[in-house]
Amino acid sequence: MRPAILGIAGDSAAGKTTFTDGLLQILGHGRVGQLCTDDYHRYDRVRRRELDITPLHAECNHMDILAQHLRLLAAGEPLLKPVYDHRNGTFAAPEYLAPRQFMVVEGLLSLTTRAMRNCFAVTVYLDPAEELRRVWKVRRDCAARGYTPEEVVAELKRREPDSAAFVRPQRDTADIVVRFQPVEGSVDDSRLALSMVLRPTISHRALTELVDKAAADGCGSVRLRLGRDAGHPVDLFDVDRDISREETRHLESLLWDRMDFDHHVQRRTIGMFLEGNRRRHSDPLAIGQLFIAYHLLTAAASTDR
Amino acid sequence: MRPAILGIAGDSAAGKTTFTDGLLQILGHGRVGQLCTDDYHRYDRVRRRELDITPLHAECNHMDILAQHLRLLAAGEPLLKPVYDHRNGTFAAPEYLAPRQFMVVEGLLSLTTRAMRNCFAVTVYLDPAEELRRVWKVRRDCAARGYTPEEVVAELKRREPDSAAFVRPQRDTADIVVRFQPVEGSVDDSRLALSMVLRPTISHRALTELVDKAAADGCGSVRLRLGRDAGHPVDLFDVDRDISREETRHLESLLWDRMDFDHHVQRRTIGMFLEGNRRRHSDPLAIGQLFIAYHLLTAAASTDR
Repeated sequence: MRPAILGIAGDSAAGKTTFTDGLLQILGHGRVGQLCTDDYHRYDRVRRRELDITPLHAECNHMDILAQHLRLLAAGEPLLKPVYDHRNGTFAAPEYLAPRQFMVVEGLLSLTTRAMRNCFAVTVYLDPAEELRRVWKVRRDCAARGYTPEEVVAELKRREPDSAAFVRPQRDTADIVVRFQPVEGSVDDSRLALSMVLRPTISHRALTELVDKAAADGCGSVRLRLGRDAGHPVDLFDVDRDISREETRHLESLLWDRMDFDHHVQRRTIGMFLEGNRRRHSDPLAIGQLFIAYHLLTAAASTDR
Repeated sequence: MRPAILGIAGDSAAGKTTFTDGLLQILGHGRVGQLCTDDYHRYDRVRRRELDITPLHAECNHMDILAQHLRLLAAGEPLLKPVYDHRNGTFAAPEYLAPRQFMVVEGLLSLTTRAMRNCFAVTVYLDPAEELRRVWKVRRDCAARGYTPEEVVAELKRREPDSAAFVRPQRDTADIVVRFQPVEGSVDDSRLALSMVLRPTISHRALTELVDKAAADGCGSVRLRLGRDAGHPVDLFDVDRDISREETRHLESLLWDRMDFDHHVQRRTIGMFLEGNRRRHSDPLAIGQLFIAYHLLTAAASTDR
């Protein structure tokens, strides 16, 4: 069985894990396998400090092995994958990973080469507003990885050249770019606008028709327009930060209906995120997750694979 | 570059490491990569005890991943290979292994399936007399792996069914079976007779002609005869335990000459083994190592790969 693989790339703390969690809810945990490309770091934390290299640098990762493993996974083969432990910055015993119907591969550099991108059914780049990502990174690294805020800010500065050189170029290769944007001067994660770039590298027609229908039904908080991104024609899809619960429910319902062809999909509460220990909800996040899930389900059901 | 891969199988303490060391001397360390299939254990030592499973059982090893890695290696691809640490019975961080011109893959179960055997240019099964292997195992496991003699003897008994079920069947698949045999009641490792089964799964003609020549030159301690093994026709090659230094030198010289086509090969002291901390020498071991090295060099130079 060859899995349908979603590739998610984005900078550190761009929301990859949060976004993935909702996808797992939609697809059903038992049907989805996960792979985080951080496991393919070449050096542990101590060695990275000695070499003064950041984990964003391609040289700091076993890119050839990652590409090899993606190729094997796309062919339906199991992996013995390395395990990097973020809590202490070292490598643990490798883990056996059997392919499942769906795989979500997420990481800093998951879309780097064409050979890697060819393994994915759908590719996504998470591109939150930079001020938002900085807040998320300080929050996460201090809570879960034992850093102080000053250390995280210094690390962000140190990583900036590698982010520009290795991470951000992936944005222009993704089928879908997902951007969350706060109100100026505020970073309430439940009130973020969503902007998606839908590149015609895959067909978004079913979704664009659906958004047109929602707009015709009176959902004024979602908009679709033709535009350009990096000079190329794209669909641009926007969700207002103050979209009403009713509008969200209507759009979600249209999306869930579209996914009815897969009888394993059950309507679940998605769009959840953690703020400290608090579980909160974001309507635009839920809509973004449903969009991506639709694409992955469609790709898995397609005979053109 | 696709490496020429030698597969060595044999039971625990059958002499795999000692035999391999001489091959590395002959081929040149810089040109040879090594892979030990013990690294593909599925469980660490503690977990094996809990499950009451021995490392000889196929279920105790990631056989599918091992086969996958052999296939990748044979195709010239690098590996990120697991690392099992015999000193403490746990897994360490994986290691990057780039293919070299020659690879030596040795382990308990390296010749288990046809798919695995197809990856090798030459396959060898080490089949020392059982009383010899028991002495070797007690010596090695007590010195290097922290066991008591009683524990090793108990472990040998516990492993016997899995040895019969999973290890020994490989003997009948190998291109070459190497057997060292002591004088009855003595286990002086420098005075062991060597018997090799040469299966016509690869061509031994150049070597059998060479042995005929040595015999014609007056080397009475080496003999070649036609025979059967498991019902199939084979060449049987014997080296007496009391072969003289002069006979050994003559035979070695004929073998080194045969390998002159590879200008990297330098005549070195081989046939060395460790007894405790003492380095000792065995003429039959040196002859066996040269035989196998000849085959690997020839396979690497062949266009029929």
